[in-house]
Amino acid sequence: MNPTIHDVARQANVSISTVSRVVNQPLAVRKEKRDRVLQAIEQLGYEPNPFASGLRDRATKTIAAMIPDITNPFYAELFRGIEDIAREQKNNVIICNTDQDEARFLEYMSYFKKKKIDGLIFVSAAVTDAHHATFAELQVPVVLAATDGERFGLPYVKVNDYAAASDAASFLIKNGHRSIGVISGPADDPIAGIPRLAGFRDALAAYGLPHGANAVAYGTYDFDSGYEAMRKLYGTMPELTAVFAASDAMALGAMAFLQRRGMEVPRQISIIGFDNISLSRMVTPALTTVAQPVYEIGKQAAAMLFRRIGNPQDEAQSLVLGHEIVVRDTVWNRN
Amino acid sequence: MNPTIHDVARQANVSISTVSRVVNQPLAVRKEKRDRVLQAIEQLGYEPNPFASGLRDRATKTIAAMIPDITNPFYAELFRGIEDIAREQKNNVIICNTDQDEARFLEYMSYFKKKKIDGLIFVSAAVTDAHHATFAELQVPVVLAATDGERFGLPYVKVNDYAAASDAASFLIKNGHRSIGVISGPADDPIAGIPRLAGFRDALAAYGLPHGANAVAYGTYDFDSGYEAMRKLYGTMPELTAVFAASDAMALGAMAFLQRRGMEVPRQISIIGFDNISLSRMVTPALTTVAQPVYEIGKQAAAMLFRRIGNPQDEAQSLVLGHEIVVRDTVWNRN
Repeated sequence: MNPTIHDVARQANVSISTVSRVVNQPLAVRKEKRDRVLQAIEQLGYEPNPFASGLRDRATKTIAAMIPDITNPFYAELFRGIEDIAREQKNNVIICNTDQDEARFLEYMSYFKKKKIDGLIFVSAAVTDAHHATFAELQVPVVLAATDGERFGLPYVKVNDYAAASDAASFLIKNGHRSIGVISGPADDPIAGIPRLAGFRDALAAYGLPHGANAVAYGTYDFDSGYEAMRKLYGTMPELTAVFAASDAMALGAMAFLQRRGMEVPRQISIIGFDNISLSRMVTPALTTVAQPVYEIGKQAAAMLFRRIGNPQDEAQSLVLGHEIVVRDTVWNRN
Repeated sequence: MNPTIHDVARQANVSISTVSRVVNQPLAVRKEKRDRVLQAIEQLGYEPNPFASGLRDRATKTIAAMIPDITNPFYAELFRGIEDIAREQKNNVIICNTDQDEARFLEYMSYFKKKKIDGLIFVSAAVTDAHHATFAELQVPVVLAATDGERFGLPYVKVNDYAAASDAASFLIKNGHRSIGVISGPADDPIAGIPRLAGFRDALAAYGLPHGANAVAYGTYDFDSGYEAMRKLYGTMPELTAVFAASDAMALGAMAFLQRRGMEVPRQISIIGFDNISLSRMVTPALTTVAQPVYEIGKQAAAMLFRRIGNPQDEAQSLVLGHEIVVRDTVWNRN
């Protein structure tokens, strides 16, 4: 068995933190003690592992946030919540734009193995087996934000996407809409794609409104894909009076398509989005949407990470934050 | 005089980089050499300065970017340019949201004095004497992005704000507008306030169109201040047919005010913005604007920083990037 920092401390008759200091800041330790520790390290053949918890009393005071793309306002607002808490904790945040690209993800992770960080927040993308294995190698706490870690027992902060989408459906139905299209995220996205579509459809079914395949178009959460999805949806379902889009950016794309075709939103077609990015109140008419507490998700994820950094034995307790419908000007009351 | 790393190396008969290794990673040095170096350090009373260039061969591979607020899309896009270059250089970026707050700025700077970074990019805010003194203490290269460092000889990357605003005025005049309002940045902002207003007014004057104080309202570059400025401007100058806003966010605020008052943009009132943030094409009508190459400013500032990190003797050569008018749908041709 490899000798541990405890063995070195015992043999040199010093505390564990003194051993750690000798390894990391040798000149901060008195010569006599330092020599004793260095001798013990050599006699035992001890190899310090920078990630072993006993050495971590010299924290790097740096965390990393891994997000798809900071130019997307949803991630920018979430990130701002992370950074505000990190600043309170006198920590710095390294930011990583992954573009959901596996090679970029792995490149960042290989940096972090060499350059110590105290913890990582992984934002939004679905966690794969490969991700999980890589997280484990880092040997620092990981918290997920706006994505789900149930399969791996990773703690997360998010909203209930199924329930939120279901509320969007009820809202449109209460406003008299019966012929409703959906602009969904990718059909294979387990985080914001599948549950939002299922929540919306199940709510329609509960009101006796079956929802066929022609009533759904798929996008990738951004403006351009929402614009194109609206074009398709309008082609297959010209009778629709309302549209639910699974992101605000797609909702704005859909609205732009309709307005540029000379259609009036909401008098002819109503739109409800999802997220409540700051942009959604800047367009005219201002967008009605299902609000996620985006900034708060970032703050809570960071607070959770710092609790776990402070106490690695901290129970991984996930947090499901509330959503609400923010009523602005894009849903027409047909009653 | 304090002993230097050279004195230690000479006395211990080792290279400078060996001394550096003993200070930073003592276990990476053979015992016999290490003891010699530690002895020399103690005899000479050498105190390693982590910022001394002789020790910098173990680079931190980390830079910092100091921006006002990442939730503002202009800064998010500029930051993305910085991060993309840093990744190519296998460096990490620490991000700092200052909110243009002096206390936050100083708090960050005091971290960076303790925790080594290799360089700093300071974005957008005007550089004060106090900023400059703090930069000097860091003893690492500093590059400015979207702001001006002439007074201090700091290298910068930006557009020519005066010329760009002047082009916006010419564009409106060529489209037949004579009665033109301006939504300016703060009257005391030397970066994007004063030069954009002056460039615009001088161009009007060159066309024989004097521009009175009633034709200007001031904002703080964000949506809400643009909304309020448009309200004021319309009150003092109801005859206007066009408005130049010194940021896209203010232009969108102005457009929202007009549209929500039932006015048609651009048929009744035309609008031209400044920046070309991604948002400007998402609204309807899509915003005509003076494009700054925002992402490119970030990339070029980062490239300049890495050149200076690699060669501290590198001449500080600033870069003025080109602007262009992106014609979309918010300027009516009255000719």
